[in-house]
Amino acid sequence: RSNEGCRDATESWKPEPTMNTTNTTRHAVLIAALAALTLGAAPLAAQAQALVVNQAITEAEVLSAQKAWCQALVDISTTHVRDGQPAAKALAEKVIDAAYGYQMGAVLFKPTLTVNPQTFRTTRAGALAYFVGGDTAFPKDTGFALKGWTRCEPVNAAVFIAGDSATTMGKVHITGKDGKVTTVDKTWKFVKDDAGRLRIVVHHSSLEYVAAN
Amino acid sequence: RSNEGCRDATESWKPEPTMNTTNTTRHAVLIAALAALTLGAAPLAAQAQALVVNQAITEAEVLSAQKAWCQALVDISTTHVRDGQPAAKALAEKVIDAAYGYQMGAVLFKPTLTVNPQTFRTTRAGALAYFVGGDTAFPKDTGFALKGWTRCEPVNAAVFIAGDSATTMGKVHITGKDGKVTTVDKTWKFVKDDAGRLRIVVHHSSLEYVAAN
Amino acid sequence: RSNEGCRDATESWKPEPTMNTTNTTRHAVLIAALAALTLGAAPLAAQAQALVVNQAITEAEVLSAQKAWCQALVDISTTHVRDGQPAAKALAEKVIDAAYGYQMGAVLFKPTLTVNPQTFRTTRAGALAYFVGGDTAFPKDTGFALKGWTRCEPVNAAVFIAGDSATTMGKVHITGKDGKVTTVDKTWKFVKDDAGRLRIVVHHSSLEYVAAN
Amino acid sequence: RSNEGCRDATESWKPEPTMNTTNTTRHAVLIAALAALTLGAAPLAAQAQALVVNQAITEAEVLSAQKAWCQALVDISTTHVRDGQPAAKALAEKVIDAAYGYQMGAVLFKPTLTVNPQTFRTTRAGALAYFVGGDTAFPKDTGFALKGWTRCEPVNAAVFIAGDSATTMGKVHITGKDGKVTTVDKTWKFVKDDAGRLRIVVHHSSLEYVAAN
Repeated sequence: RSNEGCRDATESWKPEPTMNTTNTTRHAVLIAALAALTLGAAPLAAQAQALVVNQAITEAEVLSAQKAWCQALVDISTTHVRDGQPAAKALAEKVIDAAYGYQMGAVLFKPTLTVNPQTFRTTRAGALAYFVGGDTAFPKDTGFALKGWTRCEPVNAAVFIAGDSATTMGKVHITGKDGKVTTVDKTWKFVKDDAGRLRIVVHHSSLEYVAAN
Repeated sequence: RSNEGCRDATESWKPEPTMNTTNTTRHAVLIAALAALTLGAAPLAAQAQALVVNQAITEAEVLSAQKAWCQALVDISTTHVRDGQPAAKALAEKVIDAAYGYQMGAVLFKPTLTVNPQTFRTTRAGALAYFVGGDTAFPKDTGFALKGWTRCEPVNAAVFIAGDSATTMGKVHITGKDGKVTTVDKTWKFVKDDAGRLRIVVHHSSLEYVAAN
Repeated sequence: RSNEGCRDATESWKPEPTMNTTNTTRHAVLIAALAALTLGAAPLAAQAQALVVNQAITEAEVLSAQKAWCQALVDISTTHVRDGQPAAKALAEKVIDAAYGYQMGAVLFKPTLTVNPQTFRTTRAGALAYFVGGDTAFPKDTGFALKGWTRCEPVNAAVFIAGDSATTMGKVHITGKDGKVTTVDKTWKFVKDDAGRLRIVVHHSSLEYVAAN
Repeated sequence: RSNEGCRDATESWKPEPTMNTTNTTRHAVLIAALAALTLGAAPLAAQAQALVVNQAITEAEVLSAQKAWCQALVDISTTHVRDGQPAAKALAEKVIDAAYGYQMGAVLFKPTLTVNPQTFRTTRAGALAYFVGGDTAFPKDTGFALKGWTRCEPVNAAVFIAGDSATTMGKVHITGKDGKVTTVDKTWKFVKDDAGRLRIVVHHSSLEYVAAN
């Protein structure tokens, strides 16, 4: 087991593309082109460069955040296999702190496999327990992210960008170590934090409905 | 069968309390109290009445919109039993047009019982077919709202008001004609339209997860 | 005087480019490209087309709305010269109804030349009186838009797009019939209504400060 | 001169009431009341406590932030008289960092007395120079907050709360050391940052228009 590989796995969940994209639109963008030259006799001043700050969420940022979530799931599974549950838990904490909005008050999180009376995980502790288990306060959690996932692919049915938030709904296909694919119906709502990073503030995941025969 | 009873059922889904509350906050509210008396020697003008317009969504509006959705479900079922599918369909159309945001471009709607390849109902036609069936374009839909529901109760786990939108997550308990209760996990996102009415723009509903034994 | 020219002037204030742009982003945009083909052994379904609705305000929409405001000012002046105050007033009413958000409850409007105790024009009547005069309820208004303006050019210092709203701040240069240019410092906040049209909800205009010597 | 008095002045600008109010609505509020008792035969679970997070800006928060801005102006003036320009500058930096949104990319700030070509102060440095002078990059700034202000009172014409932002427009009366009152027309737009604190992101201030005789 190489340390280098370990670092790769530990860091790979970071949604770097999102951050880069975000910085581009969030921070001041100097529009280089001089605007419409003033024509005619009126003694108008030439238009200077206008400062443009754009906090609107883009589709590219949304897709990047989804991809980062999927990669994080696989990375936690990979870390678990290689380094054990404590390492997976440490990584899951980083992922939750970077990708969810628990510091904003609460996240409306309905994970795929939770049951009563702990169906909803509005706290960071509840999310962490769901992903990596090992918390006696959530005795039925066995660690969804520890199940040996090797691949995760979001397929959106719809992306609705309201400007300062964006919601997606669609399928997410998750491949297990045996190659079997589990598909869930998933809704995510993202908002942009003050640093320009997308954060999940709503997450509803459910197994596909199967009609009884 | 009395016309009066029919009208009652036809109209009862209207979220009147929401509209009233909305009007109060949406339209200009004249603050009657004269503000801080000017003290001291400075010749300041007495503060006039400030116009206050408040579009923020309140918790009361959210709860009222949820209650209206539940009442509409029962009303459609009641109308179906008494007046048949066409009457139920006509009511469902009114409900969808009044309570959802399809006119805003799309609704991210994952109903409880839909299956591939028509799991998601981003169009008005797809929502209507789910609720009352009878649309050959959605052949597996038998009409969820026609199943004889007699009661519907939302129980929120969390309400997150972002200011210009509000999202709820929780259980909804629906009682059938035989008294059996079906419970779903449900996420709703509401926004306020230009007229001050809450509209559902995201709706993810799923049966509770049951662990295999 | 030709009717055709009259119609041109009457209609030219309409912010058509804004509407076109808005429709493009507001209404459902079907993304034609099939997304990432699934490779490898996993039996994942090919990704279908995702529906994308994007309500975020774009810089192009903002610039178009500013240009439309300027054109409307010149058009009202032109109409006044050619057809008189009633025609100018009729046009001003159309402009206000199309470009401002008075129907949303109020507009925070501080026109350039108003004085106490009617500095702020939070109602449609107050805005109309400012632009075309002739309202005994606003006795000091002589009609700012009737002053024979021949040209109007916004020069933004900054554009801040918050996603679901956008605010601009900068100079607006207005040329009178004698060729003299008046420059004002102007702040506009725009929001998108349910039909996808930008509307002015905040408008603060002031003459440039001139230091006493 | 007592250190205690100095500390009072240094700290008094802090918008504590805003923070307290903010925490109440921002952070999770546990609704203690058990909701609707379940009636009838249906075996519904008693409704648990719903978590409510409310980020909507309240009128009280807006008024508190305005009051804090006014108090800060007087405090900087007081500090300048007692402790000199460097102390006033240090306080002004704290005020700007706490009450404005420069860290969000830019603030659309048109101060009352700025002139071309530096009318607009979209950067922190430009705001600081306006308030306390002493910056060779802004040679015409003499320090607006150093003018010996003894009192500052906002009188709103209108408050428009859009949910996740709030804009005010009205008069602000500022009393100088000689008792003379200067009145400005002022527009402020506030947003709530991730910590729940209101920040000024738009600020347009202008002297009242005086009609030529």
